[in-house]
Amino acid sequence: MLEESHAKYLSNLVGADNFFTDKAHLSAYAYDATREHYLPDGVIFPRNEQDISQILAYCNQHRIIIVPRGAGSGFTGGSLSVRGGLVLSVEKHMDQILEIDQKNLIARVQPGVINKDFQNEVEKYGLFYPPDPASQDQSTLGGNVSENAGGMRAAKYGITKDYVMALRAVLPSGQIIRAGKKTIKDVAGFNVAGILIASEGCLAVISEITLKLLAKPKLKQSAMGVFSSIKEAMEAVYKTMASGVVPVAMEFLDNLSIRAVEERFKKGLPIEAGAILITQVDGSVSEQIAWQLQEIEKHFKANGCTDFKTAQNTTEEEDLWFARRNASQSITVYGRKKLNEDVTVPRASLPALLEEVGRISQVYNLPIPCFGHTGDGNVHVNIMLENPEEQLEKGQRAMEEIFKCAVALEGTLSGEHGIGLSKAKFMPLAFSPEEMGLFRSIKQAFDPNNILNPFKMGL
Amino acid sequence: MLEESHAKYLSNLVGADNFFTDKAHLSAYAYDATREHYLPDGVIFPRNEQDISQILAYCNQHRIIIVPRGAGSGFTGGSLSVRGGLVLSVEKHMDQILEIDQKNLIARVQPGVINKDFQNEVEKYGLFYPPDPASQDQSTLGGNVSENAGGMRAAKYGITKDYVMALRAVLPSGQIIRAGKKTIKDVAGFNVAGILIASEGCLAVISEITLKLLAKPKLKQSAMGVFSSIKEAMEAVYKTMASGVVPVAMEFLDNLSIRAVEERFKKGLPIEAGAILITQVDGSVSEQIAWQLQEIEKHFKANGCTDFKTAQNTTEEEDLWFARRNASQSITVYGRKKLNEDVTVPRASLPALLEEVGRISQVYNLPIPCFGHTGDGNVHVNIMLENPEEQLEKGQRAMEEIFKCAVALEGTLSGEHGIGLSKAKFMPLAFSPEEMGLFRSIKQAFDPNNILNPFKMGL
Repeated sequence: MLEESHAKYLSNLVGADNFFTDKAHLSAYAYDATREHYLPDGVIFPRNEQDISQILAYCNQHRIIIVPRGAGSGFTGGSLSVRGGLVLSVEKHMDQILEIDQKNLIARVQPGVINKDFQNEVEKYGLFYPPDPASQDQSTLGGNVSENAGGMRAAKYGITKDYVMALRAVLPSGQIIRAGKKTIKDVAGFNVAGILIASEGCLAVISEITLKLLAKPKLKQSAMGVFSSIKEAMEAVYKTMASGVVPVAMEFLDNLSIRAVEERFKKGLPIEAGAILITQVDGSVSEQIAWQLQEIEKHFKANGCTDFKTAQNTTEEEDLWFARRNASQSITVYGRKKLNEDVTVPRASLPALLEEVGRISQVYNLPIPCFGHTGDGNVHVNIMLENPEEQLEKGQRAMEEIFKCAVALEGTLSGEHGIGLSKAKFMPLAFSPEEMGLFRSIKQAFDPNNILNPFKMGL
Repeated sequence: MLEESHAKYLSNLVGADNFFTDKAHLSAYAYDATREHYLPDGVIFPRNEQDISQILAYCNQHRIIIVPRGAGSGFTGGSLSVRGGLVLSVEKHMDQILEIDQKNLIARVQPGVINKDFQNEVEKYGLFYPPDPASQDQSTLGGNVSENAGGMRAAKYGITKDYVMALRAVLPSGQIIRAGKKTIKDVAGFNVAGILIASEGCLAVISEITLKLLAKPKLKQSAMGVFSSIKEAMEAVYKTMASGVVPVAMEFLDNLSIRAVEERFKKGLPIEAGAILITQVDGSVSEQIAWQLQEIEKHFKANGCTDFKTAQNTTEEEDLWFARRNASQSITVYGRKKLNEDVTVPRASLPALLEEVGRISQVYNLPIPCFGHTGDGNVHVNIMLENPEEQLEKGQRAMEEIFKCAVALEGTLSGEHGIGLSKAKFMPLAFSPEEMGLFRSIKQAFDPNNILNPFKMGL
């Protein structure tokens, strides 16, 4: 509950139409994609960077918690106000594309711009912004930077951090800083932009983002391979990637995922297959496309691919990707609730990881459909619960075993979703007390009063 | 001067053959490429990470300064022991390539491995490590990470930070931490590896580096364009880069640099040219090479290129690159001492930057030959002094004007060389008091007793 005097100050600061403490607003900002529910004490919509600065300076002085929020589409509770305080939303006012600099292949945006809107806008200029998280239709670029969002195109084009050239941000003290430059090379001062990326809103509020763009590749083509076993498919992935071909995407569905999509949509998918791989290549000249597809076909077939087809037109392209795009919603045929995590391992460890997931599925007697971004070793593991009330604890134990396996294979707790609340308790699996101590020192250096998104990331 | 008891402890710790306080050793480790001279109190060669940990723990307890050092090839004094203390050198023992993981396209190395040795080794496996600083024959990968080294291939392939997947490092307390993973996607915990890169040995001692590798491109070809004015050449650069072609390198020499190389080596270079651009493209199929060269030729000729030639074989390839490779040593024809800085601006601001450098050269009546990496906006500006004793102060004022111009054009003080000592006094040109304050807080979080490479970066 916010003190009356604080509410009055903040309302005066941003205007009564940008600060709310009514039930409807609090409820609307109590959720994210985890479906967990924490009511904030207020919701504030800064109009600009100066507002953010004044809000933070005031809240820092009065020790009022601030939880920065983009679209609230995160999977790990990063934008939930777990102990009250204010949700600071960049949605309402700070959603402008400020500049598309065609000469330098750079754009400047406010944090509330929706990822897909930005992609569409730069494509009008023949440019290309590769990071494409599954949430791209909802999630904001500010949220993408805070979580270091990935996506399907990461295999070739990398992730959000590979496109952030500079940030403007507001420290908890209210001080406004710039970090990074519009230049590819910049080694003056500590890499503050580097540490703000993926910091989950715990270190500063991002107020402006300078992003690198690419020229849009002229040509692209997709292909699909059917494999009788998941192990062969995973071996085909890393052998293809090690051969010198760099596909834009290299995605997979396991047997359970294939069956689920087929049950829902009747598309004639190979329901007996152990796995399918769906891939896309791009380039500037047709010979480059042809060479890449030949190499992929060669490595697929050398590793047990029984059927290989390339898309010959846009319709076939869409058809090939249909199963992958609809996997997430289809697997609910196995249960009402899913425990959905994004463990990531080095590519060559994918066969070992998925074998272990299969074993855990049998031991716990729970279906665990898997799909995802094999090109970068990032697997979406879904433990499905038909009776969540009874099975939740068992499911969580199974997930913990999967995390342990990923870490043992030199992988990570999270490839894309972040830690937030959901994975906070697993941090000691992956980090030593010394490393956790360093994280706390860094948090302290930026936010000595711990007002910014506290109680997250296991800190 | 190191206390007797400290010397004894450290000598016992690493062995008498790995710890020295004699004049010869101190002198040998008093220099870097700046030619400045600061005698340390001792030189220590840790045998492994455990040694580094124990050295740091002891020195932290006793407030003994530690200056980490690779090959000492830096241009800004980053490895100079400006107030005594110990130089900690990774040269002698910590120079092993630990793993080349062909399946995952990853290598693990110790910090003392020489960049070029590493490039050569991975190329034996058909792999490719792109960062190629001019110091590649001497500089270590540990130094490259600490300075975030660039190079000629940055236009297409980026810089050191784009290849660092994970680090092991020792904090000033002696605690050993790991940061990052062998996975492309990893968003668990703060991006500590991100802030250690380019931290110039001020935050931790890097003990192991995990680097991303690429498959080596099968084909490459170079070309050169002659321009009558520097302005046209710079416009050709950014227009080519904005067109969708991504050359591996796009290098330039201005008229003074061309004349200097010609005077030294008599290669038949176009000494009346305002500038030459030398570029290289690579790829997997010949049509891709041909398309890129056609596009480059088109954009060069549309922007005043009077002569364009492509290399038809290795000899011609070497010839094209000869002028660029020998520019740095040749420009000494204009003076005994050079003030050599690496200002960087967004590519489209190159014409404005070089026009201003020309003006400053006239005003101060000093020759300022320029060459460098125009593909990424990184220009090596060389103020040449014939009588350093008389001209030094004038040269420094001229350089300060150039820095101010670069910053005004949204550029940076340093694209590649770092800040160290040499550029420390210019930090307030580029950073606000708030930003400098944040750098100090970060330094404090890692190194509360300020024992690690203190008095650098203007901190």
